[in-house]
Amino acid sequence: MIGPDIDRLIQLLAKLPGLGPRSARRAALHLIKKRDILMLPLADALATAARTIVVCPICGNLDSREPCTLCSDPRRDDSILCVVEDVADLWALERSGAFRGRYHVLGGTLSALDGVGPDDLRITSLVQRATGTAVREVVLALNATVDGQTTAHYVTERLADCAITVSRLAHGVPLGGELDYLDDGTLATALRARRPM
Amino acid sequence: MIGPDIDRLIQLLAKLPGLGPRSARRAALHLIKKRDILMLPLADALATAARTIVVCPICGNLDSREPCTLCSDPRRDDSILCVVEDVADLWALERSGAFRGRYHVLGGTLSALDGVGPDDLRITSLVQRATGTAVREVVLALNATVDGQTTAHYVTERLADCAITVSRLAHGVPLGGELDYLDDGTLATALRARRPM
Repeated sequence: MIGPDIDRLIQLLAKLPGLGPRSARRAALHLIKKRDILMLPLADALATAARTIVVCPICGNLDSREPCTLCSDPRRDDSILCVVEDVADLWALERSGAFRGRYHVLGGTLSALDGVGPDDLRITSLVQRATGTAVREVVLALNATVDGQTTAHYVTERLADCAITVSRLAHGVPLGGELDYLDDGTLATALRARRPM
Repeated sequence: MIGPDIDRLIQLLAKLPGLGPRSARRAALHLIKKRDILMLPLADALATAARTIVVCPICGNLDSREPCTLCSDPRRDDSILCVVEDVADLWALERSGAFRGRYHVLGGTLSALDGVGPDDLRITSLVQRATGTAVREVVLALNATVDGQTTAHYVTERLADCAITVSRLAHGVPLGGELDYLDDGTLATALRARRPM
């Protein structure tokens, strides 16, 4: 006999990834206890974001401005384009602070199983951008999964006619990784791609 | 370089119990993808709940009506009162469907470490309710922790002058529990409290 307003809140919270029914109940109680400092600001942040967030028409990033902050930043390098699967990957690369070029979000990977074909991804607009005079290199920062690598090969083919370099992220031992725990494929790849000290 | 609106949303989501920075980012992307069926309804549910949810002045439950649905349900048994630590425990008992009496939420347990004394809990109002003519039994459904049991003993003492039965939940082997994995204390308690087949 939970009241209808709390019940509805719990049902909706339980739909968030990472929250099940039990943690949704805990989150709801936590929110009610912190009504002014968390519940109302969160309601407001959700409503604001729902109103303002748009997909950047150039790169596919999510932002409240159009074009997005990254596309409209004049200090970024126009000559190098980093292709990612998803906005989450773009954020991960931005957190690393290692890339100062522009991005292009594909919006997924090719997947025969899930019925995702080339037309479902933002590949045509990538080819258009890569054909532009500014771009000299496209870095494919796709997941090292079967679908990610299939997509990388397909995108490479589609970019074959552009006079640009197409590269991909290096494979190897992750920093802090212990060899003992690494899979055979990664170890073999890291050995083949060994570098002089 | 995440936009300010998304960033604020992620910061707030990360404050929910069970969500860290990484899962908050995932949740934010999920919400933006499901703007109409999840993000806007959740914003609305939060705002509604923040506006309507009150603490029931009788039992301490959370509900959008006052007194709460449980206190105002005429079909429930007025003669038995179940004392719980928190609203989450009340919900757990209601889900079990095994209790048809009234509740009383203490709002915590006595804790010397956390500086929680008897005046910080809803004990005086419990004694008042238990002194009423209707109540014949008080069931202490407190956690089987040191703080929970200390509180149970204290509440029992405070209720000593009322002409009512004070009981507590049974201790023993949980249903589906394997003896092999149970702690010694529970096993010893279950053995002492053995029942005829």
